Amino acid sequence: MADYDYLSFTTDYGLADGFVAACHGVAWTVAPHARLLDITHLVPPGDVRRGARILAQTVPDLPERGVHVAVVDPGVGTARRAVAIETPRGALVGPDNGLLIPAAAALGGIVCAVELVNATLHRQQVSHTFHGRDIFTPVAAHLVNGVELVDAGPTITDLVELPAPVLRHGEGWVEGEVLVVDQFGNVQLAAGTDELALLGSQVSMRGETVPVGETFGAVPPGELVAYLDSAGRLAIAVNGGSAAARLGVSAGDVLRLWATSSRS
Amino acid sequence: MADYDYLSFTTDYGLADGFVAACHGVAWTVAPHARLLDITHLVPPGDVRRGARILAQTVPDLPERGVHVAVVDPGVGTARRAVAIETPRGALVGPDNGLLIPAAAALGGIVCAVELVNATLHRQQVSHTFHGRDIFTPVAAHLVNGVELVDAGPTITDLVELPAPVLRHGEGWVEGEVLVVDQFGNVQLAAGTDELALLGSQVSMRGETVPVGETFGAVPPGELVAYLDSAGRLAIAVNGGSAAARLGVSAGDVLRLWATSSRS
Amino acid sequence: MADYDYLSFTTDYGLADGFVAACHGVAWTVAPHARLLDITHLVPPGDVRRGARILAQTVPDLPERGVHVAVVDPGVGTARRAVAIETPRGALVGPDNGLLIPAAAALGGIVCAVELVNATLHRQQVSHTFHGRDIFTPVAAHLVNGVELVDAGPTITDLVELPAPVLRHGEGWVEGEVLVVDQFGNVQLAAGTDELALLGSQVSMRGETVPVGETFGAVPPGELVAYLDSAGRLAIAVNGGSAAARLGVSAGDVLRLWATSSRS
Repeated sequence: MADYDYLSFTTDYGLADGFVAACHGVAWTVAPHARLLDITHLVPPGDVRRGARILAQTVPDLPERGVHVAVVDPGVGTARRAVAIETPRGALVGPDNGLLIPAAAALGGIVCAVELVNATLHRQQVSHTFHGRDIFTPVAAHLVNGVELVDAGPTITDLVELPAPVLRHGEGWVEGEVLVVDQFGNVQLAAGTDELALLGSQVSMRGETVPVGETFGAVPPGELVAYLDSAGRLAIAVNGGSAAARLGVSAGDVLRLWATSSRS
Repeated sequence: MADYDYLSFTTDYGLADGFVAACHGVAWTVAPHARLLDITHLVPPGDVRRGARILAQTVPDLPERGVHVAVVDPGVGTARRAVAIETPRGALVGPDNGLLIPAAAALGGIVCAVELVNATLHRQQVSHTFHGRDIFTPVAAHLVNGVELVDAGPTITDLVELPAPVLRHGEGWVEGEVLVVDQFGNVQLAAGTDELALLGSQVSMRGETVPVGETFGAVPPGELVAYLDSAGRLAIAVNGGSAAARLGVSAGDVLRLWATSSRS
Repeated sequence: MADYDYLSFTTDYGLADGFVAACHGVAWTVAPHARLLDITHLVPPGDVRRGARILAQTVPDLPERGVHVAVVDPGVGTARRAVAIETPRGALVGPDNGLLIPAAAALGGIVCAVELVNATLHRQQVSHTFHGRDIFTPVAAHLVNGVELVDAGPTITDLVELPAPVLRHGEGWVEGEVLVVDQFGNVQLAAGTDELALLGSQVSMRGETVPVGETFGAVPPGELVAYLDSAGRLAIAVNGGSAAARLGVSAGDVLRLWATSSRS
């Protein structure tokens, strides 16, 4: 039914060992002409939340009909289940620890989820510590080959979910959890256009007064700016610098922004 | 006319976020069978000069008929223009901030340059902060699909250029700017065979006397050597170590080398 | 005879320069439709042993009929030979410094080895410092194109080998060299199922008593566990942490494990 034509990979395997290549190799062994796309392998070890955020923010920019393998999996080899999820715009394969759920939402919601118990779709010998190579990638490659998701195992409906990020607002303020700090030190909050509308054209946070702009260059070098980022989230940047360092925040922190309109 | 068949990418996006994958995904969405090649995504944030050097040094080793997307773009979303450049041996797409010009020279010179104002070749919604995904990559992918460069926007001739690197010589000396310090700590200068000919078989710099050799192993481990590197530039290395650390230099510094021939 | 269909790459080139892309570009120039797979480019500069270990552990997970280019090559441009090795399950190309030998063993042993002296298979101009681009990759790409290994140069039998890793055992103990510390801080020893059988269900090392388990989650977070890793080696991990940091060991160290069965 579904017609998948490439695999993507999001892991905490790093780039210094051969783990990523092993997964790529298994993908090509099962599906020799599958195209492969890496989202990132630099999720900090075991940081399921960051893995989930990066995956969810990136999959909407990828072609439809991908099978997205994600492995941030501190529970590998324990009772945690291996799962695959079908959405209207692609499939997701990985551990049942919440990692895949925000991406499923970003791809249009869960159509069907299965537990990966059909061992004929796994590697012949499954290790206890490398399910990326031995279960997730081969199942994903079989999906690209045309195997139906429901043939990978029985349907389940009780997927594990991560707690929702903090997002609150009140009289003249918005409080949002820091979802991601990116490569540039830009601080992305669990807030979007609606919250930005509540705040107006200037905000204050942690003692700093910050104009709302469209891009980094809207303020002089070294200055803070609040803006809607390329994923549609409310974010804080420093033009040519790191807002995370300037504000002293990191992912998971909650930042309160006050409306301090300069139009008065 | 031109017959482009792959895209390359050079950015300061890093590898920990999903930015590179978003560009790859957009490339595949527009040109599903385009081949993709990454030059590097580890240009230090905003370091246009380093991005320009790495790009210029690498494109001559890539197959002809590539479209090279480069994004080191501190001015994203401001008035700086988005441009594409045609050369005899490939096309370049990126911001008009000097990043593309040394690579254009390395590919045989600028045949034609255009400003990317034809929005039908951009992503449907263009963000203010991610033109790599929203403008540069889709335009490049359309070029691979056979769209003509001149259909991307009007011709321009006033491209922004970076200052030329320092290169001077006098009686028995050559002074060259450090273009790139590579992964191994090798120090590449804005100088080549001509300057090396002026210097002879032994040089001195910063109190060190350094033989001219062909490769690192021409000197004992831990010793300095001057040589013509694989890009044809005069470079300084330490066999098994870092010349940059030893000499205390980094990109942009100017190093003076004195001829101190051992043949006297 | 052999029917190679992709190239893999293992180097110490890092990801910040254009060296990897130059090799990819040369591969596509010689063999335009070759598939390319990166094992890692983050071997520490000049660390031939680590390069050899990562390569040997990864190639068994890759599809057969690959040509594996490996370049950790402190002797580039000196008298050290450039070689290619045929095995029952793929070919290897790189410097003759021991780097390729453990991988050749992992792929079924050396069928034939040649010295790469046939310059018609090299790049037109060969630099003294970048044989990855100028010799190893073009030869490998020619092999993918169907050129026979024996056409690359004369057969040799005296390949350079690395010293074998330390592995000893005695009354109630096993001593193994640390082969690799991976991204997670897991410590892999030069020991396998046989040695684990000698040790039983609980071991002690460096003052720590460590249960033998199947996976990280077999012990509480922060605790040590000994297990057979995904390459079939005896390894030590900390659940959710770094065993290398906890034990204070790194690659090349020798770790002695004592049997301290809890079954008494």
